[in-house]
Amino acid sequence: MCELLGMSANVPTDICFSFTGFLHRGGGTGPHRDGWGIAFYEEGGYREFRDPHPSVHSPIARLITDYPIKSNIVISHIRQANVGQVRLANTHPFVREMWGSPWCYAHNGQLEGWQGLPLGFYRPVGDTDSEHAFCWLLGELRRCFPERPENDALRQGLWRLLHQLCERLRGLGVFNLLLADGDYLYTFCSTKLAHITRRAPFGRASLSDAELTVNFAEHTTTHDIVSVIATEPLTDNEAWERMCPGELLVWRDGMIEARFGRRQA
Amino acid sequence: MCELLGMSANVPTDICFSFTGFLHRGGGTGPHRDGWGIAFYEEGGYREFRDPHPSVHSPIARLITDYPIKSNIVISHIRQANVGQVRLANTHPFVREMWGSPWCYAHNGQLEGWQGLPLGFYRPVGDTDSEHAFCWLLGELRRCFPERPENDALRQGLWRLLHQLCERLRGLGVFNLLLADGDYLYTFCSTKLAHITRRAPFGRASLSDAELTVNFAEHTTTHDIVSVIATEPLTDNEAWERMCPGELLVWRDGMIEARFGRRQA
Repeated sequence: MCELLGMSANVPTDICFSFTGFLHRGGGTGPHRDGWGIAFYEEGGYREFRDPHPSVHSPIARLITDYPIKSNIVISHIRQANVGQVRLANTHPFVREMWGSPWCYAHNGQLEGWQGLPLGFYRPVGDTDSEHAFCWLLGELRRCFPERPENDALRQGLWRLLHQLCERLRGLGVFNLLLADGDYLYTFCSTKLAHITRRAPFGRASLSDAELTVNFAEHTTTHDIVSVIATEPLTDNEAWERMCPGELLVWRDGMIEARFGRRQA
Repeated sequence: MCELLGMSANVPTDICFSFTGFLHRGGGTGPHRDGWGIAFYEEGGYREFRDPHPSVHSPIARLITDYPIKSNIVISHIRQANVGQVRLANTHPFVREMWGSPWCYAHNGQLEGWQGLPLGFYRPVGDTDSEHAFCWLLGELRRCFPERPENDALRQGLWRLLHQLCERLRGLGVFNLLLADGDYLYTFCSTKLAHITRRAPFGRASLSDAELTVNFAEHTTTHDIVSVIATEPLTDNEAWERMCPGELLVWRDGMIEARFGRRQA
């Protein structure tokens, strides 16, 4: 299995603190030694860093923890290979352009019968179930929405379709997902995803995986809203909320803008 | 104007030496302060590093010079903005997936009337003439070749079409190009591109832009063939060959596999 880390914020925010804990799981406190990657959306642009080596020994990962890249949406992944060998082409996150936006995708889980998912315009570069599922998913979205949905009703339709496609993939095995398009971050839970939203009054947080505490009050303004989503909670002194299986959350500016498939309590 | 740097090699080779000279032009010995990027093809995979800041001050660029990434094809670009503001989305190289391969593109020059080039499936994320031309070019290739050309005759047809499309872009202004698909590196000259092929017996080379000399004999085997292509020669003690305007070279494993549009001497 792999681990996922995502962020949605209403101001450009660096993820150095969370990433420091997360990357320790890549061959340090966790078994995820088969590569890692991180993608940043900044001012409408996109960049990513990927390495097929364990994050805990990676000089590129060290650069990311030391060089604060301020971003509104981040997606990161550390890999423990199941389908597809350990190589760069199989390293998440994956990205494709749709409607003039870079769509970024990372998956935790394993699928059965994924080879049967029909592909259209988007084709995998590597040989993982994850990238195949991404190409299928994006192809299906684009088949139904050839152009970018430009109003609320169309966007709701897009998100409902995304939820249906995620549910179909969940039917093939384990499918925990982080997906983003630069405006929205989408998180879908199949078995394990937790989230926390930090806003004023900000407090202290301590990492579970490394000796590090931060006082967010020193790094934020009262208007900041920053949400972090991860396979497992990254801090041990805060209350993280766990997502329900089958639930899709649509995040914008650090807040949940829409929910689909929430189990009734 | 911007500057281009490319490499094609028959063994995974690091570009640290050439990149060290090249990045000095990004705000050091040259005026190209508006961002830089570098893309590597490794074992069928692809990764890139991009930064909208001057390469000479960039910690990411410093990492690239210190951390040898071994690759068969490299494309790098340093930018002096003309069309499109200085921001990540306008920073070369650009990449799109076609036929399951990442196609990487960097452009030096400036085009007129590029807004009229019709777009199909590929759409620009930023607002440069360069990325628009890339999306048009790739869209045209894919329109004529919906599937990957799998034999020599089809590949020759693809390359002839690529040459025609490049000539059409040259008709709109200055269009020096580096393009790659993981197997081949394509270089098209509109005004300025020079190349050098290094093979046994290897000698010494001295950078023009920095105090650095390397003895390639210490870093290579007798079978290695490594070609470097750049806007301006990067060394001052070797004989670089300049490309002709209108010429397209197709590189594979460090060697020229095909030429199109060479001016008769």
